[in-house]
Amino acid sequence: MLKFEEISPSDFFYRNKEIAGFENPTKTCYTIVRELVENSLDSCEARRILPEINIYVKNMEEMGEEKEEQKINIRVEDNGIGIPSDKAPFAFGKILYGSKFVLKQHRGIFGLGGKMAVLYGQITTNMPFKVITATMDTKYIHYYEMFIDIVKNQPKIVRYEKILNKEMWHGLIIDFNFMGNYKGAKKKIIEYLFQTAIIVPYMQLLYVDFEGTSLFFERKVSSMPPEAKEILLHPKGVDLEMFKRLIKLDSHLPVSKFLCKRFQKIGIKTANDILNLAGISSNIKVGRLKDEELQKLYSVMKSYPFKRPDAKALSPIGEYMKIGIDAMFKPEFISFDQREPSSYEGHPFIVETAVAYGGRIPIPQNNEINLYRFANKIPLIYDSYNDVSMKVIKDINWNAYKINIYQEPIAFFVHICSTKIPYKTLGKEYIANQPEIYKEIELSIRRNARNLSAYLNKKKFMEYQKVRKRYLSEYIEKISIFAGKLAEIDDNIIKNYIENFKKKLSQEELEFASIQVER
Amino acid sequence: MLKFEEISPSDFFYRNKEIAGFENPTKTCYTIVRELVENSLDSCEARRILPEINIYVKNMEEMGEEKEEQKINIRVEDNGIGIPSDKAPFAFGKILYGSKFVLKQHRGIFGLGGKMAVLYGQITTNMPFKVITATMDTKYIHYYEMFIDIVKNQPKIVRYEKILNKEMWHGLIIDFNFMGNYKGAKKKIIEYLFQTAIIVPYMQLLYVDFEGTSLFFERKVSSMPPEAKEILLHPKGVDLEMFKRLIKLDSHLPVSKFLCKRFQKIGIKTANDILNLAGISSNIKVGRLKDEELQKLYSVMKSYPFKRPDAKALSPIGEYMKIGIDAMFKPEFISFDQREPSSYEGHPFIVETAVAYGGRIPIPQNNEINLYRFANKIPLIYDSYNDVSMKVIKDINWNAYKINIYQEPIAFFVHICSTKIPYKTLGKEYIANQPEIYKEIELSIRRNARNLSAYLNKKKFMEYQKVRKRYLSEYIEKISIFAGKLAEIDDNIIKNYIENFKKKLSQEELEFASIQVER
Repeated sequence: MLKFEEISPSDFFYRNKEIAGFENPTKTCYTIVRELVENSLDSCEARRILPEINIYVKNMEEMGEEKEEQKINIRVEDNGIGIPSDKAPFAFGKILYGSKFVLKQHRGIFGLGGKMAVLYGQITTNMPFKVITATMDTKYIHYYEMFIDIVKNQPKIVRYEKILNKEMWHGLIIDFNFMGNYKGAKKKIIEYLFQTAIIVPYMQLLYVDFEGTSLFFERKVSSMPPEAKEILLHPKGVDLEMFKRLIKLDSHLPVSKFLCKRFQKIGIKTANDILNLAGISSNIKVGRLKDEELQKLYSVMKSYPFKRPDAKALSPIGEYMKIGIDAMFKPEFISFDQREPSSYEGHPFIVETAVAYGGRIPIPQNNEINLYRFANKIPLIYDSYNDVSMKVIKDINWNAYKINIYQEPIAFFVHICSTKIPYKTLGKEYIANQPEIYKEIELSIRRNARNLSAYLNKKKFMEYQKVRKRYLSEYIEKISIFAGKLAEIDDNIIKNYIENFKKKLSQEELEFASIQVER
Repeated sequence: MLKFEEISPSDFFYRNKEIAGFENPTKTCYTIVRELVENSLDSCEARRILPEINIYVKNMEEMGEEKEEQKINIRVEDNGIGIPSDKAPFAFGKILYGSKFVLKQHRGIFGLGGKMAVLYGQITTNMPFKVITATMDTKYIHYYEMFIDIVKNQPKIVRYEKILNKEMWHGLIIDFNFMGNYKGAKKKIIEYLFQTAIIVPYMQLLYVDFEGTSLFFERKVSSMPPEAKEILLHPKGVDLEMFKRLIKLDSHLPVSKFLCKRFQKIGIKTANDILNLAGISSNIKVGRLKDEELQKLYSVMKSYPFKRPDAKALSPIGEYMKIGIDAMFKPEFISFDQREPSSYEGHPFIVETAVAYGGRIPIPQNNEINLYRFANKIPLIYDSYNDVSMKVIKDINWNAYKINIYQEPIAFFVHICSTKIPYKTLGKEYIANQPEIYKEIELSIRRNARNLSAYLNKKKFMEYQKVRKRYLSEYIEKISIFAGKLAEIDDNIIKNYIENFKKKLSQEELEFASIQVER
């Protein structure tokens, strides 16, 4: 006979670690750093605090020749909003518990990553993890040492202290041990931090490891992009389950008022229009709708031509992207483009792309492409081959732009922000090929490609001009004077002519330089 | 202030449908068929029942021009072991509840797929799903109509009936409606069923859809591969959490006895050896071990040179693979190879591969490769580019075998079976590049490549021989007799010579034919 049992969410994710990016000691090392950094950034941005993050990696034992992993201690400190003391144990000790799900752009998936990190530490070292936190303007710092009881999916606190918060610090410190292969992961971790510094140029980050590496990413700008706002749901982004949950909140309202109150892009006129199509009276209380009526209404809403979803819930980075790219690559040319908001399946999204040339950008090796992918301000490092952005770039006929993306120092940057990024894995590695997203990326990249093409043409022309100028500068005076004498022209006219010619050459140079600056 | 809340596992997967393969109306259609077929196969194989599966797909509404989905009804019937009546509501109505997790090869991940299928049906149609089941030798068939209460993660039964089981039927019928894009998914569904028939040739499957397609996959063989057995865990496949759970089961045992009882590859000698290395007395009760001792013991076990894990928990298909390939492709040549059991991270696995040539195998288009991937008897259809098998085949230098895999009718078949397949997604789409698995696939494919290479050489040689034979047969007699006369040799000697020569030619032909048959 088959035996049946129930398992806790902790147990499920413990048994299926790899789907969240914890598949081996190397990848785990990378995933832990990444999940904690992203939690910290989200926590700062929740209150528009300029992020300051410190990361310390220590080795608790040597990695022998024959070993594939070693005991590592990681400590991540941030200056975010912290976690209320009564919630702190659950925020890390209970899986599927987290800050409320709202329709607003955010990095994490219900805080799963941070919990998986400490869970992984626990199951590989059998040691508790430390959570130290204070919220803003509170008198005490709360110190927890705890385990996750995996079978019960509950925190198990082994030590708690309350410390007077003299300096009115706020933020969160996570500190724990885990078994990992740091040697194998280090390169990817540094790449991740480097790319994070591009997309979050208002962050300050210190990274110190036990091998003597110490990286300090300075803050490049002291302001932040406009804040994302919580907004109503778009009717196309709602399924029947969500629809019924919304009805429960306002079951006493007449159906037309309910539609106006709970959805964007529905005013009283649209509401009545929809209800007419569904054959439902607008005065009936929404809680009283029969199942068939509900389905009819839902079906009409699915095919009704609503306006695009509002993009106020999104937080694109705009010109900040140029600041980041400029600081990290010092390119000679950048073209940046932000598309108008668009949507897929009722979820709003905005695509921003940049193409940069020269400076520290390397010439790609082995037919690869310098592509930096970002989603909701997270760099995506693994599995770029499958990503929609890679597909767009490969599909473009670059000969038309006279650009050789494989043999010139060109880098592409694509940022997609959305209330729902269509990731293919919980490990947030690559974005599915959604037709609407593909289209927006393509249009944006093409626009930058045209700008780059124009710049490179101009550059080639200027190089030709430089040769011409040198040639002319050397001989023009002599030839002109000689020719003038032959033609018996007045010396002053010749001098004027020479002056004007030189001015024109300088003017062209200046114009070209201005293209470079305008980035 | 941030709001905190707990969500149920149902709610989590409802919000993250795409990670389980339910990302859009097309993919969902495919995933639903696949998950239900796999559940049915697992249910039959649990008791070595030859599977008989019937699938009916009906349209409940027309798919208009402008629509991307339509209401579809799916019904899957099997002759498996069924679900006990008291468990049936939970087996489909409660996520993270399922048949007990044992160390034995199985297709599914804790029954998640089937539940996601009915959950998806519910959230897109607001209609209940039907579960009809009887276990073996039971008097009644149980009929349920129910919903999942997503917020509570509980089944909500809306209708129940008990029907007399006159014909002693056993099995499971799942019947529900969902919104999907059947037109878009049909090709992949048929490809999936076709490949399932290759890897499970002892299955009989009927598939009937509303577009008039009716597929019947006949059973090709009436026996099944040897059964997988439940076995003890291998010490390398256990983490600290699992270690502690095992200790709880036998906390009163002396630690040496505990090790022998709960792990494979540990006898009393090995147990004492490990305990010596860890500095622990072998008589101490395992429940009394201090945390540091536990960690020390665990650490010693991690690096101890145990024998490879037992492969009894695995169910490779062996020669059945050839039956399946032969029935579906009728190739002129097959080379099959099964590797010895191997392991990664303490999980045993077996690689089986085949290379087939000719018959109905198509010549690949657009530089693609005819690769059929299987894991624990599941065909993997999507994302082949990322799969470890594809990497192996691309990395091999095929010129060395004088085989052009891009322009000849060659197909590769790779089956990996393991107690833990390292999938990269819950949607079971592709297998991670585990070094041990890579190596085994490579050795196996290379062996088949040598066989194919030998066959193709022989074939080329035989084509040359055929020309030569025709030429010789026509002229040898005349020339021999003529030459004999010239040399004044006895006629009988000449006749004998001719006879022998003809025999030799036929022998070569026979030998070649025998290579073809031996597959």
